[in-house]
Amino acid sequence: MKLWGGRFSKETAGTVDQFIESIEVDEKMISEDIWGSEAHVLMLGTQGILTDEDVRNILIWLEKAKTDYSEGKLQLKREFEDVHMNIESYVINGAGPEFGGKLHTARSRNDQVLVDSRMYVRKKILEIQRFIFALQNSFLELAKIHKETVMPGYTHTQHAQPITVGYWATAYASMLSRDVRRLSHAYEIVNLNPLGSCALAGTSFPTDRELTTKLLGFDGVHIHSLDVISSRDFVIETLSALAIMMSNLSKLAEEMVLWSTFEFRMIELDDAYTAGSSIMPQKKNPCVAELTRARSGRVYGSLMQLLTIMKGLPMGYNRDLQEDKTLLWDALEVSRQTLIVLNEMLNTMKINSGRMLELVNSNFSTATELANYLVREKNIPFRRCHEIVGNTVAKLISLGKNLSDYEEVSKVLKESDLNISAKELESFLDPVKVVQSNKSLGSTSPAEIEKLIAGLEADMQEKMGELDARESKIEDAKKTTSEIVSEVLSGKEVAETVRSNL
Amino acid sequence: MKLWGGRFSKETAGTVDQFIESIEVDEKMISEDIWGSEAHVLMLGTQGILTDEDVRNILIWLEKAKTDYSEGKLQLKREFEDVHMNIESYVINGAGPEFGGKLHTARSRNDQVLVDSRMYVRKKILEIQRFIFALQNSFLELAKIHKETVMPGYTHTQHAQPITVGYWATAYASMLSRDVRRLSHAYEIVNLNPLGSCALAGTSFPTDRELTTKLLGFDGVHIHSLDVISSRDFVIETLSALAIMMSNLSKLAEEMVLWSTFEFRMIELDDAYTAGSSIMPQKKNPCVAELTRARSGRVYGSLMQLLTIMKGLPMGYNRDLQEDKTLLWDALEVSRQTLIVLNEMLNTMKINSGRMLELVNSNFSTATELANYLVREKNIPFRRCHEIVGNTVAKLISLGKNLSDYEEVSKVLKESDLNISAKELESFLDPVKVVQSNKSLGSTSPAEIEKLIAGLEADMQEKMGELDARESKIEDAKKTTSEIVSEVLSGKEVAETVRSNL
Amino acid sequence: MKLWGGRFSKETAGTVDQFIESIEVDEKMISEDIWGSEAHVLMLGTQGILTDEDVRNILIWLEKAKTDYSEGKLQLKREFEDVHMNIESYVINGAGPEFGGKLHTARSRNDQVLVDSRMYVRKKILEIQRFIFALQNSFLELAKIHKETVMPGYTHTQHAQPITVGYWATAYASMLSRDVRRLSHAYEIVNLNPLGSCALAGTSFPTDRELTTKLLGFDGVHIHSLDVISSRDFVIETLSALAIMMSNLSKLAEEMVLWSTFEFRMIELDDAYTAGSSIMPQKKNPCVAELTRARSGRVYGSLMQLLTIMKGLPMGYNRDLQEDKTLLWDALEVSRQTLIVLNEMLNTMKINSGRMLELVNSNFSTATELANYLVREKNIPFRRCHEIVGNTVAKLISLGKNLSDYEEVSKVLKESDLNISAKELESFLDPVKVVQSNKSLGSTSPAEIEKLIAGLEADMQEKMGELDARESKIEDAKKTTSEIVSEVLSGKEVAETVRSNL
Amino acid sequence: MKLWGGRFSKETAGTVDQFIESIEVDEKMISEDIWGSEAHVLMLGTQGILTDEDVRNILIWLEKAKTDYSEGKLQLKREFEDVHMNIESYVINGAGPEFGGKLHTARSRNDQVLVDSRMYVRKKILEIQRFIFALQNSFLELAKIHKETVMPGYTHTQHAQPITVGYWATAYASMLSRDVRRLSHAYEIVNLNPLGSCALAGTSFPTDRELTTKLLGFDGVHIHSLDVISSRDFVIETLSALAIMMSNLSKLAEEMVLWSTFEFRMIELDDAYTAGSSIMPQKKNPCVAELTRARSGRVYGSLMQLLTIMKGLPMGYNRDLQEDKTLLWDALEVSRQTLIVLNEMLNTMKINSGRMLELVNSNFSTATELANYLVREKNIPFRRCHEIVGNTVAKLISLGKNLSDYEEVSKVLKESDLNISAKELESFLDPVKVVQSNKSLGSTSPAEIEKLIAGLEADMQEKMGELDARESKIEDAKKTTSEIVSEVLSGKEVAETVRSNL
Repeated sequence: MKLWGGRFSKETAGTVDQFIESIEVDEKMISEDIWGSEAHVLMLGTQGILTDEDVRNILIWLEKAKTDYSEGKLQLKREFEDVHMNIESYVINGAGPEFGGKLHTARSRNDQVLVDSRMYVRKKILEIQRFIFALQNSFLELAKIHKETVMPGYTHTQHAQPITVGYWATAYASMLSRDVRRLSHAYEIVNLNPLGSCALAGTSFPTDRELTTKLLGFDGVHIHSLDVISSRDFVIETLSALAIMMSNLSKLAEEMVLWSTFEFRMIELDDAYTAGSSIMPQKKNPCVAELTRARSGRVYGSLMQLLTIMKGLPMGYNRDLQEDKTLLWDALEVSRQTLIVLNEMLNTMKINSGRMLELVNSNFSTATELANYLVREKNIPFRRCHEIVGNTVAKLISLGKNLSDYEEVSKVLKESDLNISAKELESFLDPVKVVQSNKSLGSTSPAEIEKLIAGLEADMQEKMGELDARESKIEDAKKTTSEIVSEVLSGKEVAETVRSNL
Repeated sequence: MKLWGGRFSKETAGTVDQFIESIEVDEKMISEDIWGSEAHVLMLGTQGILTDEDVRNILIWLEKAKTDYSEGKLQLKREFEDVHMNIESYVINGAGPEFGGKLHTARSRNDQVLVDSRMYVRKKILEIQRFIFALQNSFLELAKIHKETVMPGYTHTQHAQPITVGYWATAYASMLSRDVRRLSHAYEIVNLNPLGSCALAGTSFPTDRELTTKLLGFDGVHIHSLDVISSRDFVIETLSALAIMMSNLSKLAEEMVLWSTFEFRMIELDDAYTAGSSIMPQKKNPCVAELTRARSGRVYGSLMQLLTIMKGLPMGYNRDLQEDKTLLWDALEVSRQTLIVLNEMLNTMKINSGRMLELVNSNFSTATELANYLVREKNIPFRRCHEIVGNTVAKLISLGKNLSDYEEVSKVLKESDLNISAKELESFLDPVKVVQSNKSLGSTSPAEIEKLIAGLEADMQEKMGELDARESKIEDAKKTTSEIVSEVLSGKEVAETVRSNL
Repeated sequence: MKLWGGRFSKETAGTVDQFIESIEVDEKMISEDIWGSEAHVLMLGTQGILTDEDVRNILIWLEKAKTDYSEGKLQLKREFEDVHMNIESYVINGAGPEFGGKLHTARSRNDQVLVDSRMYVRKKILEIQRFIFALQNSFLELAKIHKETVMPGYTHTQHAQPITVGYWATAYASMLSRDVRRLSHAYEIVNLNPLGSCALAGTSFPTDRELTTKLLGFDGVHIHSLDVISSRDFVIETLSALAIMMSNLSKLAEEMVLWSTFEFRMIELDDAYTAGSSIMPQKKNPCVAELTRARSGRVYGSLMQLLTIMKGLPMGYNRDLQEDKTLLWDALEVSRQTLIVLNEMLNTMKINSGRMLELVNSNFSTATELANYLVREKNIPFRRCHEIVGNTVAKLISLGKNLSDYEEVSKVLKESDLNISAKELESFLDPVKVVQSNKSLGSTSPAEIEKLIAGLEADMQEKMGELDARESKIEDAKKTTSEIVSEVLSGKEVAETVRSNL
Repeated sequence: MKLWGGRFSKETAGTVDQFIESIEVDEKMISEDIWGSEAHVLMLGTQGILTDEDVRNILIWLEKAKTDYSEGKLQLKREFEDVHMNIESYVINGAGPEFGGKLHTARSRNDQVLVDSRMYVRKKILEIQRFIFALQNSFLELAKIHKETVMPGYTHTQHAQPITVGYWATAYASMLSRDVRRLSHAYEIVNLNPLGSCALAGTSFPTDRELTTKLLGFDGVHIHSLDVISSRDFVIETLSALAIMMSNLSKLAEEMVLWSTFEFRMIELDDAYTAGSSIMPQKKNPCVAELTRARSGRVYGSLMQLLTIMKGLPMGYNRDLQEDKTLLWDALEVSRQTLIVLNEMLNTMKINSGRMLELVNSNFSTATELANYLVREKNIPFRRCHEIVGNTVAKLISLGKNLSDYEEVSKVLKESDLNISAKELESFLDPVKVVQSNKSLGSTSPAEIEKLIAGLEADMQEKMGELDARESKIEDAKKTTSEIVSEVLSGKEVAETVRSNL
């Protein structure tokens, strides 16, 4: 019979056991579950809700559960539904019902499962942030090397204006900094302590929620018990941050696919990050980039699932909420892996700067600068310059020429009564010059790129500082709990030990 | 080195092996993969592309792969990426490259993976359809018993008009018949043979695609090779059918949650299909219904994932398409399990007909019939009758009465100069009478419900006939392939054997 | 006071009027609403539920509503909530409550709104199908011209094997035929008559649902009244068909964007189907293709909205269902417009066959055929051929050569002890030859493309036949209703006139 | 010919004009567009890129555009594509090309459209936040009145434990505070200045982006020009915040639907916030709540649309991005309206505290407290108490009794050797007592609710302060720009005027 089976006259059906269990997903949180239980029991002891003897007898078996699990001796059983009931059963079985039966005092699975999953998610968020930093860093390193490597800048996948590889790379670093930021905001509501909310109404036991907050490394208490039990916005906000990040990474993936085509040839992916064909011997396919692009869909799907679940769900815990983990776990893992391989792929790919320059020189991407020149030097209104240059481009196309054919350009402009020598044209239309002449804030000139790099590095430093502090706080809390448990098990008084360690 | 590694100078990176592999998902299709390869090889032999000796040497090892796999001797390895490369490697290893190396002649993984997944999906669709029939059947059985059991019919979750449990149950059976239909339509495009499309362009080998179509139990050839390689609409159409079905099942789940509340008490779920609380001893929660409701989100999410993947993907196989299986498999399994438990839950739940009648009698759900009576007997335009009855209801509410208080109703109507005795009122306002008086096509009267049942049973018969025929066709094809393989392995000539068995 | 306001003591709040009204969306269905009401009234008259005088007095004003609306004299008012209440009010106002008040006898807005929207959607589906046919036709015309125009076939956006423009174009025609099919299936459940279901339970009036079915051009009755009122799967199935179609069109859009880049240059879009830049004078952007790609998201979003709405909604009409139209209308319109512009764009774009051939000749896309040759002529197992050719490609790349450098290829192959002269190589490796040698069913050879075209044309003929029949049926029903109305208004007996016209 | 038409030989097709135009959506941003242009021109003047005369001639017509638009004299034309080109054309037309043609110097539509939409979105976010505060406030007022009004607390829609209306209301206020927070975070990245990014690469004109930042009330510059042009995460983050908020509001809507059923009867919605039925005279339907529930789907759909659009889109502006507004505008409006009506509905609904108490007393919701009592007073482990109480409940159900039948409970407990008198039971099992005894942080006791209210009010104060500051900043910037424009038009020197006003 289930631990909650007192009022039931029958066991749950076999099909139901399978339908409602969540062992595979829960199992990932087993260390969080035990940590959570230890903190809970220490609090119960400190508050005099359990005796020191109760606490010790429970802690012995929680500690043993860790060892037994790591040694494969404790295996989670599907008939206990979830990790929580498995551990509680293990403790009851080990310590006997007179002690083990007290573990769940002033607690519900409703708050317990939230403790576990919040602790699990916070860890994953920090991990993912670290991988974003690594990717940002690779982009900045690339930018430092390629501050002056000219390449075509695209809009509508058509040549727009010359930019540099460094400029392109810093754009990604800049974009990713907002992904870090969003995850950081999500972290703020993830890392709040739900423990002590019990079923939905709090409890008549004199619990101390601030105490478990400290022991578990939470940044604060999620105070309203009914709200915390009913809400999953910490999950959706996290998924939404991941979905946006994956949409950003799909942008990079798309460019890698595009740029490594025979037609673009602007980059070459390393053999180790591509795959062949079972039938076509010549193929070298950008499979990693393609899968990255596709897996944005996986995370979008997870987000949509969670939003669907929450639609029209009344207050209070509803079993629907159990479904919040399966696809969140998947989304976290997919995101983590994607960041890792993209980073490696970026670091190993070759930049074909010769091809890039060839492309820039052959398709009118300096037309805007020609118009700007006319504004500045000939005092013609921009809109008219736009028209003149537009006509010029049309004419050159019909002649099979482009803007790098300075002599020809000079001739065509003469038809519009504009006398600009080929030499003069070259002096400002050479793509390398164009790139340098864009000196507005956040533009393509090397000096601006250096400023962008410096700014982004400073931003990363600051955010990494936050990340480090968060990781330390969790580590410290874990160590503290561990030490308290050791001391209590070695015979020290519970309340006293807890107080002196915090 | 990978089987496709001829032009590569490096192994794929370890992180990439993990990122691109799909073993866990593929493994489910291993029997389809082997069947597909056997059919392919038999076709190659029949067409003289391989010799009979080639064919035999390959078939021996394909057969052995089946046995070895079922005995745990053949385990799929991640470094071979997928099930296809695993099996091919196994055959090459066993039969030697001089024979095994010929298995992939005139074939690509692009068409091979489609063969496997279409065969897998068609099987699952038929399985799911059978479970829908089971659920429909339960509803019809319920309807037969409860043709006359009066219950409140709701709109806006408010009492609308009296209906019967039989009427309600047939509504679900009717709705589900369209789910069967949608899956049946999806099946039509799932069960077309992609084999022979090769990479994207067909082949210069004289293959016979009609032959493999027969051997594999497909209903026809998906002729255009580029189209079949590039498209996944068979997946999205299937997912869309499942998503709609899950939205329908979430309706049933919602009603089960609602009706088993203390407030409604119209049904009682069996203990075996509910679960308790870890903290609240009195709880008996409709967890299965809640998870059903929530899992609609899982299938919605899968649908959204696939649509996302297909957005903006150019023609030809792209690795993105590998992602079509993970969540499709999940959606198929979730749907299957949900149908099973809902059916069991429906069959074990108790209908509280007393409570239903009590509700019908206490809240004005016969008001429309009173208006209809006034139209018919007093020749008052319906819109005016609506107003009169509306006023009457308002008055009765203020008096704390309802439409079952016939004396009171009679008095109130008199204020609108309508003389209808309490007895007369009872003769047509008793909910049992109201339900019987609705005789329009597809309405609540027992005779109409009987017709609905008969119609739905006929519809089910017809659709089950189609299902049976489809299953038989697959079974027959499987048996035929198996027999041909046996005969060929026992020494018979390939082309001759194939021809005489088809 | 609202027409339903009898039991209410207050008007609805102004904010609520705005929140619940649906005039803008409903207005599109006004002609369907009037047609539906006329059919309903004729049925009521035929069945003796209304007198001929009632019928005539109502019909006069329904007819007048049409004229007044088209002349701008009848304007829908927000305070009447929707088109249905507006028209009913207009009739009551015109004909007086003694007649107009009878229009809504034996009907509810629940079935009425479904009549309107099903009639509206069916019309739009047929319209969209016709535009798909037009696009398919353009692809087939293109295919006829370009049966032998060689181009690179891509997988993973990398050159895979040579194909032809005709082959590519038929792939789209083939793909689109399934979009027609899906819409056709959706049509089957859209075009069923909900009228007569009333609120949810049918009615005690002796209605004839078969009669309105004929008058309104429906293909049958959606019999179960509660099912039809509660279900919106006809909407979701339609949206799902449109979403898949848009994902298909986004494929075409993506290829148009890609192929018109400077790097690919395989097509040139007509100036009339592109747009310029406000700042960059040289730009010619594939904006139509880009918007097509993006608008897949609009239809995906609509699908997701509907699925969300239906999740966990209990049986019976719920006001949530009102939301089924806004985004469906949008999705239908977006789909329609997209088909039109894509078709025009396809018909005006230039195919750069010279560039296509250049690409095919410069990047190893014939490697598979070389392997196939080795299988056939040298009797080497395919897997070994794959490896030999893979190595050959790697060697050629390092030499800066490709497979069109036949002399070089011949030399490299000699290193693997394979003697194949340059001339021999040219005889089967020339892309034009490769394309011709693929003769398997559904492959690239001109003869196969001709068969594909013939097959697709036959398929279109058949489906267009169905479409024509459906349109005629609706037209006929409309004309019949119209004639009956005229005759009745000219004084003929209702029942008799109806009977003799059907 | 379009303003960008210099290089084009043809006008865009009529179908294309319709397909790519965005007038209806853009029109909402007209005042932002003009403000943005004024700031841009003032900056150009200050930096010496335009002369004071240029600036004045442009400003005159920008000012006139405002007046003409408000008087209906300036109507946006579809052939100019969007609001930006309409206004520029208006200025060129008015001021002549020699002045008007200079407005677009050092600017692109790419950054211009972002200026407009960011300014529009920031305004809407602040508006929505204000309505959230209003709703939070209503919940807190309700909580103050109903701190001690006992009601059933639900989990799984089943009675769980007694709570109070005040406790329930504060849960919503607490939940909504995170919605404010998410929108506030989104605001941070919305309100950054994109102007000066130009097409994607910045410009060679010596612009001053900090200056326009001040004039337009932005909080800072979004520095990286390519990043800002390519990214729409500010839109997705906003939509994601709205989607989560709508999922929260759908929770409230669902409870309103549920609680106003005849079965629950815990609340009564005001007539002004409900609607009737066209056929059923007695109906009073919670239509506003139902539409709220449904409209979560609308916002979810918008979110999904945007995520779809961004999937796999390469860097740089792509026309796909134009689609970011249509559904975002809709989502903002839907959210705004929903907050307003829900707030009104909440403030006018009646709480049926009698019915609530009746429900609490009749269905075992105090069972947990009984178990807790046994833990405390009888020193029995909780898990055993859970079992005892579970058995007790089962027994009472079989006797047709519940936990308020203290005599009976006392008897049943005696069977488990527990002597607790009926009087003693009443002293802690009376729901009012139970609610008071939950004194843990964030629980149901009146004192805790008071603390919750105080905490939430403080939180609101702080966040409202931020909102006020943001609104003031925008207002101030608007006034400053306006004053500068006046002074410049009255003849003052541009650079000087700008400097002295900032």
